[in-house]
Amino acid sequence: MDYKKIDKYDIDFLVSICTKDRVFVGEEINEDFSHDELAGIKKYPEVLVEVLSTEEVSKIMKYAYKNNIPVTPRGQGTGLVGAAVPLYGGIMINMSNMNKILELDEDNLTLDVEPGVLLMELSKYVEEHDLFYPPDPGEKSATIAGNINTNAGGMRAVKYGVTRDYVRALEVVLSNGEIISVGGKVVKNSSGYSLKDLIVGSEGTLGIVTKATLKLLPLPKKSISLLIPFVNLEAAIETVPKIIKSKIIPTAIEYMVKDVILASEEFLGMKFPDSSADAYLLLTFDGNSTQEIEKAYEKVAHICLDSGAFDVLISNTQERQDSIWKARGAFLEAIKASTTEMDECDVVVPRNKIAEFVKFADDLQHKCNIRIKGFGHAGDGNLHIYILRDELDDNTWNKKLDEVFKLMYSKAIELEGKVSGEHGIGYAKRPYLKSSEGELMMNLFKNIKLSFDPKNILNPGKVF
Amino acid sequence: MDYKKIDKYDIDFLVSICTKDRVFVGEEINEDFSHDELAGIKKYPEVLVEVLSTEEVSKIMKYAYKNNIPVTPRGQGTGLVGAAVPLYGGIMINMSNMNKILELDEDNLTLDVEPGVLLMELSKYVEEHDLFYPPDPGEKSATIAGNINTNAGGMRAVKYGVTRDYVRALEVVLSNGEIISVGGKVVKNSSGYSLKDLIVGSEGTLGIVTKATLKLLPLPKKSISLLIPFVNLEAAIETVPKIIKSKIIPTAIEYMVKDVILASEEFLGMKFPDSSADAYLLLTFDGNSTQEIEKAYEKVAHICLDSGAFDVLISNTQERQDSIWKARGAFLEAIKASTTEMDECDVVVPRNKIAEFVKFADDLQHKCNIRIKGFGHAGDGNLHIYILRDELDDNTWNKKLDEVFKLMYSKAIELEGKVSGEHGIGYAKRPYLKSSEGELMMNLFKNIKLSFDPKNILNPGKVF
Repeated sequence: MDYKKIDKYDIDFLVSICTKDRVFVGEEINEDFSHDELAGIKKYPEVLVEVLSTEEVSKIMKYAYKNNIPVTPRGQGTGLVGAAVPLYGGIMINMSNMNKILELDEDNLTLDVEPGVLLMELSKYVEEHDLFYPPDPGEKSATIAGNINTNAGGMRAVKYGVTRDYVRALEVVLSNGEIISVGGKVVKNSSGYSLKDLIVGSEGTLGIVTKATLKLLPLPKKSISLLIPFVNLEAAIETVPKIIKSKIIPTAIEYMVKDVILASEEFLGMKFPDSSADAYLLLTFDGNSTQEIEKAYEKVAHICLDSGAFDVLISNTQERQDSIWKARGAFLEAIKASTTEMDECDVVVPRNKIAEFVKFADDLQHKCNIRIKGFGHAGDGNLHIYILRDELDDNTWNKKLDEVFKLMYSKAIELEGKVSGEHGIGYAKRPYLKSSEGELMMNLFKNIKLSFDPKNILNPGKVF
Repeated sequence: MDYKKIDKYDIDFLVSICTKDRVFVGEEINEDFSHDELAGIKKYPEVLVEVLSTEEVSKIMKYAYKNNIPVTPRGQGTGLVGAAVPLYGGIMINMSNMNKILELDEDNLTLDVEPGVLLMELSKYVEEHDLFYPPDPGEKSATIAGNINTNAGGMRAVKYGVTRDYVRALEVVLSNGEIISVGGKVVKNSSGYSLKDLIVGSEGTLGIVTKATLKLLPLPKKSISLLIPFVNLEAAIETVPKIIKSKIIPTAIEYMVKDVILASEEFLGMKFPDSSADAYLLLTFDGNSTQEIEKAYEKVAHICLDSGAFDVLISNTQERQDSIWKARGAFLEAIKASTTEMDECDVVVPRNKIAEFVKFADDLQHKCNIRIKGFGHAGDGNLHIYILRDELDDNTWNKKLDEVFKLMYSKAIELEGKVSGEHGIGYAKRPYLKSSEGELMMNLFKNIKLSFDPKNILNPGKVF
């Protein structure tokens, strides 16, 4: 693609919009901005600019559009597929200082936020008002716009759904700098094509989200977690469809294995309540009374015991629950700390196919002679599986990674799964999306992209 | 638009695909196929063809694409905005005989259906399996694909959301006859743009839905309705934001006024439990135990009594509930039967603006000297307001209708509402969508339309 290179005049323009202290070039740009969390690819922007308002974003996009300069929006860089890496240089817009909570509307149960609000701040704020923002990805220091752009799901998707379900409206700057509002503070909407739903999950390729109106729920009054040890992973995972079939819907159903728990204990320097078994299910139930929750989990506890669980460990105090979920939240970091480099597979499969996929991935360790560690959202079929480099040389690592990925993604497609459950496609997963969706779908994606961004300047090289 | 006219060769082709007994021309076409439920516009297709499979639809679309023939898909014709009226003649595809329930997957809580399955058959089927399809529009004889194409919401949207939230996957025939699958039997998905969410609500303009995979929930074990009489409509509706704010979420919150109830009693020949008050709220609560439900509704009952309700009439038997909801379901038909012709306004406003809008609409009766009757989903801000022709002559009717609509839609936009909550735009509401969304958004809609349907042969003249 033939983009204009950044020159002195471009820098002067950006300084005129954002002042000098928010425009960075060359060595002023921190290394962090050249990669995301998994850092499989590295590339610096030609210029980094911190924005504080929608108007600034709009002015920058108008200029970039006129001058054919690629623009990559970036939040906290917690992505795992290179979606926020500026592949073609150009301008990177750091959105993370647009981080104000704008308005809590208790009449309509909505919250207006700027894009850079962190997930952990958001949930703290609403919970202080006895309200609830259900999406709960492991990475709490991600921005809300990052979550919106990948349609993140998190732990509670089993019961509550994903980020898209909680976005009522967006303010978006288009590639030509025009500002649009999509959706509204309304519960229903059948007024033209749902651009709101299209922009959610579009990884910054269709527009830059500058404001979001989120749907909130009343905060459930109680929550109880069950940690359930099983003889092995297969027994644990095969229990999941039985739980779903029982017509009791837990808030979360996670699975975890002993060595990931041990890695997390070491990483956090903190004991997990139990690490004697090879595999565990971790379930949460929420509701408005202990009695109501107990009734639900008793049935599920029996299903687990009938399916070979050793025990059912009930965490009904906030403290015990926090310690378990803190460990769960650290799994990614703990696995990362245990190796030199890693890459991940974030497939989602129908819930009754999880056991088959997990077994398949586990067997690849021996077949391909490489360490593979995983955990995931057993209740919604979304697995996070990490391939670890350890001491492999460049050549072997790249070859093995390619081999393992091809096998994993083919298996996922065979099981009627999808390439990504919540981390997105970005740069790293493009070939797998293409082989999974086919030429016809990719052409529809491209046509839609061109409808929004005819010059292909918004986060180019991502998704396809 | 310059479409090919249907000739003998086209008919021969359709007969070769669907056999002679499923192809209708000229006087063989029943009058029903020239309009929808509100019949503001009337136009016959040049040929009507009944399809039985995706392959037939695909072959017809390939032919239509090649020959530049407009195609209008149609279900039961229960729409209210002319979306299924073949404005440009051409081929009408009657989808209503593709009406098989294909697969209930209890492991994944999904149901695969053909497009012509009726909403009442669908809910009956899943409830027999102790499962629940939450969307519940008043018109139970609509097809599921009709509901998908308008993103219908219905009564239970307050708690459960709208049709889009329950569509996991779609099989769709594109304008060129290609068949695509969007979404999947998966709970999360971040694999490219969400075409599934774009096609839901697109009123047959982007593709023809030939199969849907729906998300189901466990059936709530109990449900209790409260009928709450108020001194007047204002008092009733002003109570709604207080209920939402109380952090108790009922399944449904409907409002109704005395003369609509009386019309319904007359239409059904059946007494409503109470018709002494000027206005009512009708609330439903569902859950897994009577105790849990009682706890929720007690709080809400107190809020209502504190806000001037005369009484709280509890319907805890299935029989009493059915009689109330049957009357509610007949409101549209009852109002229609009370006049010569009518047209409707299906705006949605933020929930805390409903009272203001309803009062505004009510005042228009006097201001414009025309009968206006309404009811609606007070809990989600979606109002169904009907303007009645009675004995007005053509000229006066058209003038008044235009005047009333302009005032109503302007008011809705002023309150940050949307033109349609669930009935869609179709033919009738296009000018209001345009003035509400503006040129920029309309251009995005058009570009997306052309991405899917470059020859504009699929349901042309609708939405924009």
